[in-house]
Amino acid sequence: MNATLDGDVVRARGDARQRFHDARGYGRADGPDVTLARVEAAHLLYRGDLDSVSGMDFRAFFRDSVASEPSFAARFLVYADLRERGFYLAPVRDGWPGSASGPGGDAGNDGGADADILVFERGEKPGGPVAHRVRVVGEREELTTADLVGRTLAVVDEESEVSYFGCEAGGGFDGRTEYDLPADVEADLLDDRVVCWSPPAALYESAFYGQPVSGRDDADVDALQLSLLEAADLATRGAVDIDADAVIERGHEVEGERFDRRLSVYRELRDRGVVPKTGYKFGADFRTYDAVESVAELPHSECLVRVVTPDHRFHPRELALDVRLAGGVRKRMVFALAGDDSNDYLTVERLTP
Amino acid sequence: MNATLDGDVVRARGDARQRFHDARGYGRADGPDVTLARVEAAHLLYRGDLDSVSGMDFRAFFRDSVASEPSFAARFLVYADLRERGFYLAPVRDGWPGSASGPGGDAGNDGGADADILVFERGEKPGGPVAHRVRVVGEREELTTADLVGRTLAVVDEESEVSYFGCEAGGGFDGRTEYDLPADVEADLLDDRVVCWSPPAALYESAFYGQPVSGRDDADVDALQLSLLEAADLATRGAVDIDADAVIERGHEVEGERFDRRLSVYRELRDRGVVPKTGYKFGADFRTYDAVESVAELPHSECLVRVVTPDHRFHPRELALDVRLAGGVRKRMVFALAGDDSNDYLTVERLTP
Repeated sequence: MNATLDGDVVRARGDARQRFHDARGYGRADGPDVTLARVEAAHLLYRGDLDSVSGMDFRAFFRDSVASEPSFAARFLVYADLRERGFYLAPVRDGWPGSASGPGGDAGNDGGADADILVFERGEKPGGPVAHRVRVVGEREELTTADLVGRTLAVVDEESEVSYFGCEAGGGFDGRTEYDLPADVEADLLDDRVVCWSPPAALYESAFYGQPVSGRDDADVDALQLSLLEAADLATRGAVDIDADAVIERGHEVEGERFDRRLSVYRELRDRGVVPKTGYKFGADFRTYDAVESVAELPHSECLVRVVTPDHRFHPRELALDVRLAGGVRKRMVFALAGDDSNDYLTVERLTP
Repeated sequence: MNATLDGDVVRARGDARQRFHDARGYGRADGPDVTLARVEAAHLLYRGDLDSVSGMDFRAFFRDSVASEPSFAARFLVYADLRERGFYLAPVRDGWPGSASGPGGDAGNDGGADADILVFERGEKPGGPVAHRVRVVGEREELTTADLVGRTLAVVDEESEVSYFGCEAGGGFDGRTEYDLPADVEADLLDDRVVCWSPPAALYESAFYGQPVSGRDDADVDALQLSLLEAADLATRGAVDIDADAVIERGHEVEGERFDRRLSVYRELRDRGVVPKTGYKFGADFRTYDAVESVAELPHSECLVRVVTPDHRFHPRELALDVRLAGGVRKRMVFALAGDDSNDYLTVERLTP
């Protein structure tokens, strides 16, 4: 069967509407005919269901489409991959299923703005409930938070493989850690850490602040080392007898404004009953525990948290690294967007549609 | 027992030489007495083996030392950790064992320049063969390649935990992949990738260039997608009929100078019989295979490679992320330092002394 390029769409007549639209969910019904987006027509050529579009075979039509539409190659690869996985899909486009003026376009969906492809729930026809609002990106593109929230990111790497990330607002924290803090424990600010001398055991064992100078039997010293973040938090709460401003100033000396952002997130998590500890060994800012009863029976930490600015540009390659590492150690990857007045959280996970 | 601070060392008399130096490898013999570095004296105070240094207890001496020597707290933590692991060690310092003018200081060692602590092989006394030249760094310090090569990095994180990385020159590649390339395969440069049309099967199946447009049964198209790196390499070798300069120019458009560095490493690895494929899913530039017989029986890839400039500054947190991820997927982490004329390689692995 042959179809015709008409501006930026492809029109097919005859039994095309029945074969492609009604039976297999391609395109937009147009009276007795069907109108296809370029990506749909390319897929039909690729499968051999269409023979040509205005005389062009797959190779010619693909070249023409790459020259006509930005990121066509990447969108085609994702479209083909998702079709292969057995979903009905539609390009996000006025009049197409699920988009504005299209069938199902008012079904409580947000129309998929900023998305490229709508994937309908398994077994649902185009225009039905949406499973994924897919945004297609090359691995070299930078993304803002707004690009990610509520979207399924389809990253096409330089060798044309596609991987998917689900991005949801919120960190999914469920803080349930309870403890009482001591008052005015003696402490020294030493270099870029703080040492508490003879602290009450519960400060470490229940509240999980700090790290004993040693857990060794042969030590003659009873002391707890605190990170600058822990010390600043405890000083503000009156638990250690040290000037909070001096600790924060030291934090600025060694980390600059990053220290403020991290402290803001640290405090908020503590306020919510979540225990943040350093995530250094995972290359993150924090690992977090929702519910610590005692350090002796420490649960698995649930999240890795990376603190960024609200205008942070995410690189797909860095996302892949963070999310893969978190998955490998069975933790959620959460980005904390530390703003001047409040913090937002974004959870990113690998998924297989 | 009490000792005395004398300038920047601590002197102990009586049976101190026998107890601390001869029996347990602390300090430098000084006639009948022993001279201790601050870090050694602090460790003896910490264990209760010394009672005071010039009237100072552990807390007072530690504060005094932090004020006197840069990074004292971090060096103390690493010293204590390594002692705990049962090694003899010595600070790198003129006259101390293993260092210039000290016992064993000429034993073919490089004196440990740029290192902070020498760790002697297990069971060996101070001045014997060196197992680790340890460089102590805080997690916020930046490191050059020269800081790393031949060193064991001891990173003290913000919560005072220590982790170790071994850093060796070279990538450990053992390329044994052999194949013949075709000539002048038809290809199109499309966006940021290249598509080869009807390529000989061996280009993918033996040489492992590219990615078939689809491995699907229902495809009507026989094509191989190449990354810009693969295409530039193949064009230079005359295997595909496309202008190498045009491909490289497109690479510059999308990646800037980073493309040149990656291409230089890509080519060198191919020349050495190693097959580099994208490392995107691991957040790296490449994953590499030493010996590919066929894609159908692809071995496990041995390395992850990150390409950096020769003057790259390594951040311990990023090192931790890369090396941990590589370890989790049982691969070596290799940094390729892509220079103007040649490339160097650096392998970094986690280790437990």
